[in-house]
Amino acid sequence: MSSSFGKLFTITTFGESHGGGVGVLVDGMPPGIAVDPEAVQRELDRRRPGQSAITTQRQEADRVEIVSGVLDGVALGTPILMLVRNTDQRSKDYSALKDVYRPGHADYAYDAKYGVRDHRGGGRSSGRETVGRVAAGALARAALATVGVSIVGGTVRVADIEAAARDWELAERNAIRCPDAEAAARMIALIERTRDAKDSVGGVVEVVARGVPAGWGDPTMSKLDAMLGAAMLSIPATKGVEIGGGFGMCALNGSQTNDVFDGEKYASNFSGGIAGGISNGNEVVVRIAVRPATSIGKPQTMAKAGGGTETVAIEGRHDPCICPRVVPVAEAMLAVTLMDAWLRQRALRGRDR
Amino acid sequence: MSSSFGKLFTITTFGESHGGGVGVLVDGMPPGIAVDPEAVQRELDRRRPGQSAITTQRQEADRVEIVSGVLDGVALGTPILMLVRNTDQRSKDYSALKDVYRPGHADYAYDAKYGVRDHRGGGRSSGRETVGRVAAGALARAALATVGVSIVGGTVRVADIEAAARDWELAERNAIRCPDAEAAARMIALIERTRDAKDSVGGVVEVVARGVPAGWGDPTMSKLDAMLGAAMLSIPATKGVEIGGGFGMCALNGSQTNDVFDGEKYASNFSGGIAGGISNGNEVVVRIAVRPATSIGKPQTMAKAGGGTETVAIEGRHDPCICPRVVPVAEAMLAVTLMDAWLRQRALRGRDR
Amino acid sequence: MSSSFGKLFTITTFGESHGGGVGVLVDGMPPGIAVDPEAVQRELDRRRPGQSAITTQRQEADRVEIVSGVLDGVALGTPILMLVRNTDQRSKDYSALKDVYRPGHADYAYDAKYGVRDHRGGGRSSGRETVGRVAAGALARAALATVGVSIVGGTVRVADIEAAARDWELAERNAIRCPDAEAAARMIALIERTRDAKDSVGGVVEVVARGVPAGWGDPTMSKLDAMLGAAMLSIPATKGVEIGGGFGMCALNGSQTNDVFDGEKYASNFSGGIAGGISNGNEVVVRIAVRPATSIGKPQTMAKAGGGTETVAIEGRHDPCICPRVVPVAEAMLAVTLMDAWLRQRALRGRDR
Amino acid sequence: MSSSFGKLFTITTFGESHGGGVGVLVDGMPPGIAVDPEAVQRELDRRRPGQSAITTQRQEADRVEIVSGVLDGVALGTPILMLVRNTDQRSKDYSALKDVYRPGHADYAYDAKYGVRDHRGGGRSSGRETVGRVAAGALARAALATVGVSIVGGTVRVADIEAAARDWELAERNAIRCPDAEAAARMIALIERTRDAKDSVGGVVEVVARGVPAGWGDPTMSKLDAMLGAAMLSIPATKGVEIGGGFGMCALNGSQTNDVFDGEKYASNFSGGIAGGISNGNEVVVRIAVRPATSIGKPQTMAKAGGGTETVAIEGRHDPCICPRVVPVAEAMLAVTLMDAWLRQRALRGRDR
Repeated sequence: MSSSFGKLFTITTFGESHGGGVGVLVDGMPPGIAVDPEAVQRELDRRRPGQSAITTQRQEADRVEIVSGVLDGVALGTPILMLVRNTDQRSKDYSALKDVYRPGHADYAYDAKYGVRDHRGGGRSSGRETVGRVAAGALARAALATVGVSIVGGTVRVADIEAAARDWELAERNAIRCPDAEAAARMIALIERTRDAKDSVGGVVEVVARGVPAGWGDPTMSKLDAMLGAAMLSIPATKGVEIGGGFGMCALNGSQTNDVFDGEKYASNFSGGIAGGISNGNEVVVRIAVRPATSIGKPQTMAKAGGGTETVAIEGRHDPCICPRVVPVAEAMLAVTLMDAWLRQRALRGRDR
Repeated sequence: MSSSFGKLFTITTFGESHGGGVGVLVDGMPPGIAVDPEAVQRELDRRRPGQSAITTQRQEADRVEIVSGVLDGVALGTPILMLVRNTDQRSKDYSALKDVYRPGHADYAYDAKYGVRDHRGGGRSSGRETVGRVAAGALARAALATVGVSIVGGTVRVADIEAAARDWELAERNAIRCPDAEAAARMIALIERTRDAKDSVGGVVEVVARGVPAGWGDPTMSKLDAMLGAAMLSIPATKGVEIGGGFGMCALNGSQTNDVFDGEKYASNFSGGIAGGISNGNEVVVRIAVRPATSIGKPQTMAKAGGGTETVAIEGRHDPCICPRVVPVAEAMLAVTLMDAWLRQRALRGRDR
Repeated sequence: MSSSFGKLFTITTFGESHGGGVGVLVDGMPPGIAVDPEAVQRELDRRRPGQSAITTQRQEADRVEIVSGVLDGVALGTPILMLVRNTDQRSKDYSALKDVYRPGHADYAYDAKYGVRDHRGGGRSSGRETVGRVAAGALARAALATVGVSIVGGTVRVADIEAAARDWELAERNAIRCPDAEAAARMIALIERTRDAKDSVGGVVEVVARGVPAGWGDPTMSKLDAMLGAAMLSIPATKGVEIGGGFGMCALNGSQTNDVFDGEKYASNFSGGIAGGISNGNEVVVRIAVRPATSIGKPQTMAKAGGGTETVAIEGRHDPCICPRVVPVAEAMLAVTLMDAWLRQRALRGRDR
Repeated sequence: MSSSFGKLFTITTFGESHGGGVGVLVDGMPPGIAVDPEAVQRELDRRRPGQSAITTQRQEADRVEIVSGVLDGVALGTPILMLVRNTDQRSKDYSALKDVYRPGHADYAYDAKYGVRDHRGGGRSSGRETVGRVAAGALARAALATVGVSIVGGTVRVADIEAAARDWELAERNAIRCPDAEAAARMIALIERTRDAKDSVGGVVEVVARGVPAGWGDPTMSKLDAMLGAAMLSIPATKGVEIGGGFGMCALNGSQTNDVFDGEKYASNFSGGIAGGISNGNEVVVRIAVRPATSIGKPQTMAKAGGGTETVAIEGRHDPCICPRVVPVAEAMLAVTLMDAWLRQRALRGRDR
């Protein structure tokens, strides 16, 4: 169950970058929820490579097939298998990487762990694994919508450039998915320069859930923030997660960060919508640190599997900044986490909310 | 299983702040490992209130009893129950809090979730729940020591004051548990001023595991960093977690943050000892954001359960900065997480490392 | 989690026969349910040794303490620890058994598995482990009663003597807990003869749940009968389980065993209240095979840990037929299993039934 | 996770009888184990309908595709998706069954549980779900073979006809898979008569694991017999399971059923190879009660979804006795259960055996 997430809404991703396909098995979708294959496809299209000048030009059609668990557009309550075939498999591109460990990549760790490794395109550690997450997230979003929960997100920082605004509708209209048009332009310019230098750059992605009622999340080990911590740090290339005020609160006082509540509304949201591990009725706000993509075109020193090092430039189609492609993945994982918390609360109280 | 963490080394904490006791049930301790009750007690003493002028003066003896699973100082491989009785229960202190929702606290969220709440001392949401985590962590540390893994930690930031050094031995010798003597003095002075102002302040705790071999952590959903995300964000008052370079990496380039590896040593540790969710042989480095303690003496506006608000000052014994008491808890959760990852790797490969 | 059962109503038993105590940690009790310690105690008293002339004369007060999770007689929704101290520990009785493997017992298997073993009174493999099950079952019964589900049971066979009637009220009024007075008398006479011969005899225990609505149980791997299979075969000394018609159906035709249903009532109950792994509205009927107690007074040949065999008579207080003491345990496990299935169905549908 | 079985070797089946396909996702296959698609196919061919005159004539090619987790014939340690497309889908056959509840079938229970149902061919409750179990079992068998564990099985009873011998090699050579040639002939004759009467008959399937070392199985809730109870009773149409002496032991004395052990060999196997929930080095022996197939051609009274009843004869291709097709499924579930227990023991002890 290493590839499973969620206790009641359980998603299990499968697939290597260059095998027969990737996807997800979703167990626990409530019966009777409408499932629209096109809605799933739309989310996958948001994740797909080749969308803009600042993403990798690898082309994958990424058409999803819903193999089971849905009849006449309605979830049966049985496992839903969603399968996306791999198509653009230039396996020969990768043969040179069979016996070296790329810096920053998981090559060495995979070999140490498994003793065997699919070196083609990163195998299981490829970002391609997130296809299944996004497909599962689309189902979770459809279910959450029935109780008024919606999810938005975007890139709020690239290198030192921070978004000053949170116009989420705007986020989908620029290549970096930034909710601040002015910052977006500067981010994109920086990323293009980084790409031309055959390098990569990091950033921060923020995702927000609206309409979450108070009461979701299960103390003490399945607190909502704990589950979000697991969900977000399981996304490739993430190295940090914060809720609400996050690390920024460290420099403040309790009298500033204790969100004043009048019984209906909160005066602030340092808690990020979660108190004691339970949603408190405020917006759930999560930010994740996205490291600079480890795949870069610059020559790098690499350890050889047999010993010694060599300096190699990895040709290929790289993402200079993966933030815009992480956005739909982080949204999906937020949806999946909330979905599970919702169902757990239904079990606890025996009613919908 | 909401209060359980870990798949093979499973800890389940129990207990409210003012009930019959708190503690932990540990299932999955490998048989034959020596269990020293005094080592457990030492860790609990590090967590205990009343240790210094900058922690709450609440007095709890916190003596642990190992009820089951250990015979003649050796783990039997059966569930180990560790129980700590509650003693200093001034329940009358809390009667005024029965019908108000303290800002920043989980009171309202608990009511919304459960419909019933033990209001005395925070009940289950009390920091007292971490007694069980620390006791379980002591067992995990003993087991990990048999394969050469050790854990250190300390407070590396309070408000804007950052530790410049990482002298972990020194951390245990000052009240804030800072691995930098000069910063420690400034942190303590700031905390004393904060305490006198009846306020609280946040900080950052860092924990480090040494000797972790490459290969621990289970992609893709039980990656080591994902499990650490859940472990750390389940600790009360934490609102962020980062691994290695964390959020700081966002401003850098891949050519800087790709840790160069020569097959034996890494030139840097931006990955925090984890690549692709698997330990890579480097030190595992985790930092958590600790919010300013929500319990403060200043008057605050609170929602009343029946509607309306009132302004109340909560008398009592508060921690102006909980970082030093979070340190042993974070170390414990790091130990527990690694312990589980270790056993999973034993299952995968059928050998100890 | 080897000692845990249940996904949403999770019970974890702990304790060895001669350690500090035995008991159970229950996680997932719905908040607001009334918890009566005396009701728990009553169930434990039904399981306790020394109740009649045909059970072991070992004396254990078996007083339960509810340590956490309950306030003012109401479940908080947090983990409930129930602890029973061991008192009648004649450890010296058992010193002779340290280095032999009793036939039929788990001694050798425990040594092979763990490499270390608490030989006193069977340690963890003692029937005393069932104390925790019975205590947890009492909570489950209280919760199930709120939706009209009740549980009865008894011994329906000893050796070749079968109960012809199912007068469950009567079952509590004879020492063998048989729902047929005439058969009970014959069973007891047989057991007394067996006891005098320093031997033991097996039997069959039947437990029945009334009022279970259609819809509980989760295909395909958590079917209600599958979960009952695990629950019942985890009880010490059980070696078989059957639902409804069970093994007896093998000799019949489908036209006989297909329970005819008119939309409200069933004409028969060969399915034992479960169709396709889901409760169908009929009574849930489960029978378990209880082997002759492995602890007998007759001299037996035993393997020595160091090699070779010896013939030993184990003095002590044995149960000649454990069926009457298995009854409350089997009822408890039925209650726990149904409880979990109920909560899962609440999660699935978002309503109580 | 309702469709998942196993903690470390986790199989999740998916698929309805008449959707896009059926299959299994296996997570936890140890890396480096050779995976032969033809070995998987051979097991599926044993399960397939249309093999003989006494099985349904429904034709399904049941060709398996291994989509992920295997490279160059070796398991990568990542999730293995195995997919079998549905081909012979005569959906129109089933339209008459949309609004009736067939007796003995799960139709009503499914409606009560999910509120929506795929009525075509039983949907998820179809025996076709076992395709995934058999495919997963083939992987488990391959892995177990590396430590010397092998599995055999057959039909040992049909109606009142019992096999007197256990010649397992012979079992594969007759249509009923009986390990006793003489009994096999009588069983087949009886089944043919039953088929001609448009009825069905039950039986008992026995599966045996050889070479299981002492030490597998995890007390107290994941005992090997408990896990086998869940595994076997999750198979469609099973209504009972017994280990070793099973229900037959009830009529015996402890002095007869305590398997005498000399440190190397057992004089008998009433325990069925499991003591205290742990394998004891003897053969693991499991028998399951297979009810008469609920699908029969005789006219039957059925409840209508809208109220009332009607009498209908369900035309179609039915199995008069499903025992021979249950054999490979039960063997597969035995293999999967042992596989999980083996990996858990590796985690506990850090070595292969």
